Amino acid sequence: MELVQRMLAGDKRACAKLITAVENNSEEAEKILREIHRYTGNAHVIGITGPPGAGKSTLTDKIVKFLINEGKKVGIIAVDPTSPYSGGSILGDRIRMQDLALNPNVFIRSMGTRGYLGGLSKFTKNALKILDAAGYDYIIIETVGVGQSEVDIIKTADTILMVMVPGLGDDIQSIKAGIMEIGDIFVINKSDLFGADRTATEVNMMLDLNMAVERRPPVLKVVAVKNEGIDNLVLEIKNHIDYLKTSGKFEERRKNNLKIEVVELIEAELRKIVISHTDKENKLDSKVNEIINKEKNIYEVRDEFLNAIKN
Amino acid sequence: MELVQRMLAGDKRACAKLITAVENNSEEAEKILREIHRYTGNAHVIGITGPPGAGKSTLTDKIVKFLINEGKKVGIIAVDPTSPYSGGSILGDRIRMQDLALNPNVFIRSMGTRGYLGGLSKFTKNALKILDAAGYDYIIIETVGVGQSEVDIIKTADTILMVMVPGLGDDIQSIKAGIMEIGDIFVINKSDLFGADRTATEVNMMLDLNMAVERRPPVLKVVAVKNEGIDNLVLEIKNHIDYLKTSGKFEERRKNNLKIEVVELIEAELRKIVISHTDKENKLDSKVNEIINKEKNIYEVRDEFLNAIKN
Repeated sequence: MELVQRMLAGDKRACAKLITAVENNSEEAEKILREIHRYTGNAHVIGITGPPGAGKSTLTDKIVKFLINEGKKVGIIAVDPTSPYSGGSILGDRIRMQDLALNPNVFIRSMGTRGYLGGLSKFTKNALKILDAAGYDYIIIETVGVGQSEVDIIKTADTILMVMVPGLGDDIQSIKAGIMEIGDIFVINKSDLFGADRTATEVNMMLDLNMAVERRPPVLKVVAVKNEGIDNLVLEIKNHIDYLKTSGKFEERRKNNLKIEVVELIEAELRKIVISHTDKENKLDSKVNEIINKEKNIYEVRDEFLNAIKN
Repeated sequence: MELVQRMLAGDKRACAKLITAVENNSEEAEKILREIHRYTGNAHVIGITGPPGAGKSTLTDKIVKFLINEGKKVGIIAVDPTSPYSGGSILGDRIRMQDLALNPNVFIRSMGTRGYLGGLSKFTKNALKILDAAGYDYIIIETVGVGQSEVDIIKTADTILMVMVPGLGDDIQSIKAGIMEIGDIFVINKSDLFGADRTATEVNMMLDLNMAVERRPPVLKVVAVKNEGIDNLVLEIKNHIDYLKTSGKFEERRKNNLKIEVVELIEAELRKIVISHTDKENKLDSKVNEIINKEKNIYEVRDEFLNAIKN
């Protein structure tokens, strides 16, 4: 495929077109992904998550600038509706992102949270593969850390940064309680604000309580907007990569993610079979009427369809 | 089933036990749901959603008290990690909820967001059915309005309240942009705070722009903590119920939700078949190794499994 060849040669526009093709779930999507498979598996994926207002985009900006100064190529996938990359946030942020977007070693893609209902994590994973094949050394996925699809997305990352911020209040921090355990590095951003030490202490206490983990995640204080602590953060990311590789966790994580993906792909095909059965002659419509009229319960209807599919 | 009989007779403990049985996905779960089907379909379901800190729990509290004063029975399902019903939020809130929980006409159930990964909306729907069969006139589902599973849950409600609050900042409000269109009633809570008029104006402007809707949702200012505007809010909920019933939307929504549920049930059964195939003799494990070693791509592996399932 010519587009794939151009993407492999470093053409950013070809890369963007391939991601769009995959997003649109076009017929060629699978063809593209089959073709690029052999070029994937080299990028290191960094997930950045945290509540709105934690300064994730500014942090992303600084990390990316640090990495490109080292000569690396960096891809960004923003699935955060509040991210300037995705069209959210304030004008100043957006302008700041513009110069990154123009850098030949940076590729930015925003995945709007609308229009992907049910499939956002699939599209994100596929976009990731294309950027991986395109030779980006690091791929950053930025997402608001709430909701199941966001958790599914962030779990595909090799290194997960949980961004917290002083003074956002118990309400907002507690939302993250459920996904706290997936953080590899905890970042207290805006740590020049009052309360930063307290937030850091709280996070440290919570992590100390969690005896189950094999590696105790570090807690770092940064001030992204002033570029303070970014060097140390990037160092910790690299330490984490080393840890993953030497401990065998790197392959373990990727294998687990692949298993989930294979099962999802099988299910997606079976779903097509279900839809072709239930849509035929408005069958589902009339069956649902039987449920509403209490002639049948939902399980009887399910079993009727299952029998039809099997035969 | 004896437990079902006791639940139908108004026994709250039996009701709680049935929900637990369904939550645990025990073998009897399907048996219970088959049996109660004929008693369902009478409750009116109110979804309350909005960002953390919007005061959803206080609002729920006041609405429930208003309805029980009218002699109604009310069930509450809290799937909000920040809700005092679910163990979150501050002590004062929790104590306030205690007296509701002791009221014979109120049933409170919290669904933790942990441990339901992928299945939260299924469990919520099933708990809803049990409360419906148990004769609760209104069932309130409280959830943080972010994330796909929360959207799936809230969509099962007949009347959806979107709770906003002045001064939470653009960042937080914008997170709700994607689900704005599913709100039936917009509630500006804490509207004694500075900025309430501006927030109300913004919401109104946004709703005026949306020409696609058949019914323009009302925007109400309330101060839940002072019980201000609750009577008017309950009136608008009842107006919405009337609208749903006279316009045929009520049946339309329920039918659509049922269709989704039937398809999900069919898929769940097919998923069991997939798992039994992929788990057999660690097949998935060895196939994933082939993908990592670039011997096969993920689609080739998918097709191998699909062929195995079909034969």
